[in-house]
Amino acid sequence: MPEMDEPLAEEDSRESEEDRLIARFFRPLAKHPGAFELCDDAAVLEPPAGYDLVLKTDSIIGGVHFLAADPPETIGRKALRVNLSDLAAKAAKPLGFLLAIALPSEIDSSWLEAFARGLAADADAFACPLLGGDTDRTPGPIAITISVLGAVAHGRMLRRAGVQPGDCLVVTGTIGDAALGLLLRRDPDAAARLRLTQAQCAHLQDRYLLPQPRSAIADLLGRHASAGMDISDGLVGDLAKLCRVSGVGAEIEAARVPLSPAARSAVACDPALIELVLTGGDDYEVLATVSSRNLKALQTEAAARGVEVTDIGRMLSNRSGVRVLDRDGRPLVFARPSFSHF
Amino acid sequence: MPEMDEPLAEEDSRESEEDRLIARFFRPLAKHPGAFELCDDAAVLEPPAGYDLVLKTDSIIGGVHFLAADPPETIGRKALRVNLSDLAAKAAKPLGFLLAIALPSEIDSSWLEAFARGLAADADAFACPLLGGDTDRTPGPIAITISVLGAVAHGRMLRRAGVQPGDCLVVTGTIGDAALGLLLRRDPDAAARLRLTQAQCAHLQDRYLLPQPRSAIADLLGRHASAGMDISDGLVGDLAKLCRVSGVGAEIEAARVPLSPAARSAVACDPALIELVLTGGDDYEVLATVSSRNLKALQTEAAARGVEVTDIGRMLSNRSGVRVLDRDGRPLVFARPSFSHF
Repeated sequence: MPEMDEPLAEEDSRESEEDRLIARFFRPLAKHPGAFELCDDAAVLEPPAGYDLVLKTDSIIGGVHFLAADPPETIGRKALRVNLSDLAAKAAKPLGFLLAIALPSEIDSSWLEAFARGLAADADAFACPLLGGDTDRTPGPIAITISVLGAVAHGRMLRRAGVQPGDCLVVTGTIGDAALGLLLRRDPDAAARLRLTQAQCAHLQDRYLLPQPRSAIADLLGRHASAGMDISDGLVGDLAKLCRVSGVGAEIEAARVPLSPAARSAVACDPALIELVLTGGDDYEVLATVSSRNLKALQTEAAARGVEVTDIGRMLSNRSGVRVLDRDGRPLVFARPSFSHF
Repeated sequence: MPEMDEPLAEEDSRESEEDRLIARFFRPLAKHPGAFELCDDAAVLEPPAGYDLVLKTDSIIGGVHFLAADPPETIGRKALRVNLSDLAAKAAKPLGFLLAIALPSEIDSSWLEAFARGLAADADAFACPLLGGDTDRTPGPIAITISVLGAVAHGRMLRRAGVQPGDCLVVTGTIGDAALGLLLRRDPDAAARLRLTQAQCAHLQDRYLLPQPRSAIADLLGRHASAGMDISDGLVGDLAKLCRVSGVGAEIEAARVPLSPAARSAVACDPALIELVLTGGDDYEVLATVSSRNLKALQTEAAARGVEVTDIGRMLSNRSGVRVLDRDGRPLVFARPSFSHF
């Protein structure tokens, strides 16, 4: 073994590439004091008294959940937002998140800088600071796993179970935009075929890139809803899951499902697209059930916070699954009731 | 759109492949009531009163942190144990974990069954139930991200900072086994060259496959140590990180570093291997600093729980980094002081 007169000086035991990358891109997001500026092995958090913790982990993988060409600013935001969407649907407010990111060698500093900038903006906007993380190299595609921690008043997490037959079925925002946005990304001729304006295309594509977690009304859902979940795999398929857990059925009136003007135009041009709208993935809206006596309050209070809540059907006592009715009350059938990223 | 007389019946809105896979392999691990048998979107946990939460996420990726040919039973266990090792080094006891797993198409049920069986055994052994998860397909290698949640008495998480100059430097267990085990995996001639018996080779390789988190003494570390971290990137490199955070230096006496009989044989045969032993990764032992008045108590109480704690050096007041001394008190220098998986 060689020897030397000098010890391994502090500067000589040089920081690894990983340490430098974390310090440069991710330390600025770690504003929670328990994150120790990412200079310790773990984060510490004093749980708020009287609250339960709500925990969720979700990965997004290049080529599976987002496209490699997506702007890096939006990829980090999407990774965080899909988790925040779950917290909102469970009536929980965010406390912070952990980030595990696997980077292929072609990812450069400018990509990382934009990724971290987007993520930082959302961590601030949703009051959900980075608590800790792990950065790795991968021979595969970029993979981002976010684990989010939320808080809800003790015993008040909104479950998938809890539905009462006769409850109204509601959704937030508009349905189907993201699936249409993805269609536009994948089929360059679709915009012309569906006679969509540039602004309409931009709206739909933006909805695919950037989910809108309904964090603003999480507490209202906790107060008024009997059950809830976020819609990530399509309205019909996710509702079927909720029905299974609660042992009930559901009926959707297709004409009452809220569509954005852009989605409405697309469906007007090609009515068969209603299937994609109702079964396509990536909505990240909340699906909830509400007793009829709470419906008005939820709608009014949510509207005051800028979130539309639309009554689209009702829950049934029989275990008949999900029935989607057209304007004439006749059931529609879909080739592929649920979208799956798997 | 086609129509049909029957609604989308519960059985017709068939469970996805992902749902079936989760139900078959992962539901049995979700024993915590707040995991809702993985039938909800998130888990809920009532935090223990008077405790802080300790949070950590760590990924392991095929070809980077483990070898594709590793037995699947051990891969899940390693993924959990690298996180449990951090909790132990922070003086925290496990509460539960979240699992995100990305599966390439070649992974079959027998692989998953063995993976889940190993993970289930460790979830039981370390009283760390699965709380929730996410399963995805990936075009890349298998990637497993575990986020673990632990509890420590309020304000008592063991930090990297907190070292007092003059503190003793201790490690648990033995150092260097896993790095030698990996060497044996990678170099088929190494066993013969180092004159290792089959049992010695098996010991070293097992230490690479299956870290031994020091959860059994987490509370003792909290009571007696001034700072701590787990050794994942090599003793010397990780100690340098601890020194940087605490603004101190450290001196290791190489001859006092505890080696297993197998590692001792290997180093006796090829003395240059001491560098691999002291700087190679994957030890997953605890590195801690302890005041001299607490040393004996920590050692005695840990030994009573089957964990050896060895005094290998001391912490210095000057910011001189890490110095490793040979038997004659002369500093050793290494080509690559720290291992990095990155």
